[in-house]
Amino acid sequence: MPLARSWVETANAPDCPFPLNNLPYGVFSVEGSPPRCGVAIGDQVLDLTGLEADGHLRIATTPTLVAPSWNALMALGPDTWRALREKLTRMLDESEGEGAREIITPYLGPLSNVTLHMPFTVTEYTDFYASRHHATNVGTMFRGAENALPPNWLHIPIGYNGRASSVIVSGTDIRRPWGQVKAPEARQPTFSASARFDYELELGAIVGTSSQRPLTVAEADAMIFGYVLLNDWSARDIQAWEYQPLGPFQAKATATSISPWIVTAQALDGFRRPVPPRSYAPLPYLKEPHDTLFDIALEVDLARDGGVTALTRTNYAEMYYSSAQQLAHHASSGCPMRPGDLLGSGTISGPERENRGSLLELSWGGSDPFETHAGPRRFLEDGDEIVMRGAALGDGYQIGFGECRGRVLSALEDPFGRAT
Amino acid sequence: MPLARSWVETANAPDCPFPLNNLPYGVFSVEGSPPRCGVAIGDQVLDLTGLEADGHLRIATTPTLVAPSWNALMALGPDTWRALREKLTRMLDESEGEGAREIITPYLGPLSNVTLHMPFTVTEYTDFYASRHHATNVGTMFRGAENALPPNWLHIPIGYNGRASSVIVSGTDIRRPWGQVKAPEARQPTFSASARFDYELELGAIVGTSSQRPLTVAEADAMIFGYVLLNDWSARDIQAWEYQPLGPFQAKATATSISPWIVTAQALDGFRRPVPPRSYAPLPYLKEPHDTLFDIALEVDLARDGGVTALTRTNYAEMYYSSAQQLAHHASSGCPMRPGDLLGSGTISGPERENRGSLLELSWGGSDPFETHAGPRRFLEDGDEIVMRGAALGDGYQIGFGECRGRVLSALEDPFGRAT
Repeated sequence: MPLARSWVETANAPDCPFPLNNLPYGVFSVEGSPPRCGVAIGDQVLDLTGLEADGHLRIATTPTLVAPSWNALMALGPDTWRALREKLTRMLDESEGEGAREIITPYLGPLSNVTLHMPFTVTEYTDFYASRHHATNVGTMFRGAENALPPNWLHIPIGYNGRASSVIVSGTDIRRPWGQVKAPEARQPTFSASARFDYELELGAIVGTSSQRPLTVAEADAMIFGYVLLNDWSARDIQAWEYQPLGPFQAKATATSISPWIVTAQALDGFRRPVPPRSYAPLPYLKEPHDTLFDIALEVDLARDGGVTALTRTNYAEMYYSSAQQLAHHASSGCPMRPGDLLGSGTISGPERENRGSLLELSWGGSDPFETHAGPRRFLEDGDEIVMRGAALGDGYQIGFGECRGRVLSALEDPFGRAT
Repeated sequence: MPLARSWVETANAPDCPFPLNNLPYGVFSVEGSPPRCGVAIGDQVLDLTGLEADGHLRIATTPTLVAPSWNALMALGPDTWRALREKLTRMLDESEGEGAREIITPYLGPLSNVTLHMPFTVTEYTDFYASRHHATNVGTMFRGAENALPPNWLHIPIGYNGRASSVIVSGTDIRRPWGQVKAPEARQPTFSASARFDYELELGAIVGTSSQRPLTVAEADAMIFGYVLLNDWSARDIQAWEYQPLGPFQAKATATSISPWIVTAQALDGFRRPVPPRSYAPLPYLKEPHDTLFDIALEVDLARDGGVTALTRTNYAEMYYSSAQQLAHHASSGCPMRPGDLLGSGTISGPERENRGSLLELSWGGSDPFETHAGPRRFLEDGDEIVMRGAALGDGYQIGFGECRGRVLSALEDPFGRAT
């Protein structure tokens, strides 16, 4: 698919993350006004809540974009998702007449002027462990190369329930957590500020509709409304002491950052890739009916003191399990799924060192510090800012995700103090 | 504290679960009318939504009990919880005058006529593993008596995030799940209906207010609005294959039943008990400032074909960690907590065989079938109904929880079929 040209000229630049082919959905506010739903186009945001309220955009019989959240639109289902995208594509296409442009133009405003908010309400949050490179790296560190992958790993998209209340939008600072930790050589645990705080590069899939029974991968794929970048902030020292036998809990509960624009599954449709070759034939309920991964280039930088160091360069197509397969597994017990459920892909690593999606892997458990412009890093230091970016690269255009940023603040001095 | 006598005469019987001392909150409907908030008193339910709407009960400046859910009241905080309880206690006290009784009486109706609904919206659900007897039983079965308790168990109230969408009200049937399973001797996993479906007797604590930072146990205790009985339905065969390394996932996602009446923390205040002696001094953030367990007698029966067999007889005071300690640990990383968060206590077992809170323990992993009136049970069979009851036993009265019931239906014949 070539670039679709818009009359919003900035959308036609080859390096613009938000061309007409993309149309990602977000929630924005301009100083002094309440948050509203919008779509990014070029360097502008189009106020869809305003367009709908003023009768220029009809989505359903009653207004859909009243609450500053995309959940209500999601719940209307894929036919409505498609119809809205078609309408917006027509409205913003360069062939659109002067009269229509005059109606729409007052609802456009520069992205540089807006504050971006959580684009949807996270109903529940689940996180997976589905990159073979990541699981092999972590498993080798903790159990040795021979036992790197648990016996179930090649059969099940391993996941665990995370904490929806931890999900925050890009740009929100992250307070280094306290927690119960125990060094391997220590006799007793202590309650301390985490000394091994880390990022994890992931993609988040947003479930758009409900289910109450097992799903095929095709059904699951059709239920996914869109994707965001996701940083699964992780306290490795808390995790090491707590995670046996029931999995990560407080290590992952402090914060989970997401990028503010929902890139729709439809926008990514031309970038589908198959899951990699399997070690075992998948059980039928996990079989891909069509390609369910996407070719999305991903990068993570460390920013501080005006300087930047590249940490991770990888691609979502490296995953062993896709979000659609994860959702099919998630629903396999009859587990009810709902609009706004967020599924973290799991850390996205690749085969090479530069592809590793966490400092845990880049510094090999802290044993081999990673050199940055701000000094060597085993794990994150206070003041470090993690910046994630992603884009599906088309021919002369890209489907960009924008940024997912978060800066690490020092731990509370007195975690139980009232005045902080 | 003695029985508080009410002018609703049936509330004064010593075996009535809902005396004036209790005042549990629920959501009910009478045929043809929408669900509303109510309080149980004797064999009656008092329509609080109606009383508030008609100006006979003032809780806040705007109506609180409009939505059929107790979340809005919870969010107003402990002072409002206390004020409401005091008002209701006065309204229903036997000393209340004839005039006031005449106003209230039209809002009373027999419990036998109503349908009970979910009493609150579950924001997020967390499940713990906090009975030493249960953890020792399960650990002995799977790892041998010497390694029964994981090294962290005596220091951390081990918990994992569960699935809020799975929580349903007592009386809802439970469909036996399908899932990915692998027998130890099998070479490959299969996708099958669970053959080892089980109950787990728990108490659920409902978080009533919000937090964004670590909490002391005293603060956590004050945030708990009330308690319900909870059945954490568990597919042991799915769990055995999936749970390493990230914990239970689909094994616990099919259904979680709760009893329909929220017994408030205030009603249980006279039944507080300390946590049992510790093997290690708890870290300060987990220290009890006052007694945080409760003396609540609990029982589980198997009902089918008109007959009943006692399965479990135990007491909540057997727990090693209280809900207040669990909530303090839950918030220790700064994990945001919100009104409506539900914390499952973990299976409540005791020292004797009859105290075991699951069939897994009663049949010792299926190796020693448990005899019932309906035949021996290793795990649950289709048609089995699990009935849980609980009560704090006072002097001449009780604080009853009512029942938590659920019947196991056969698995779907075709889990991916459209017509079921």
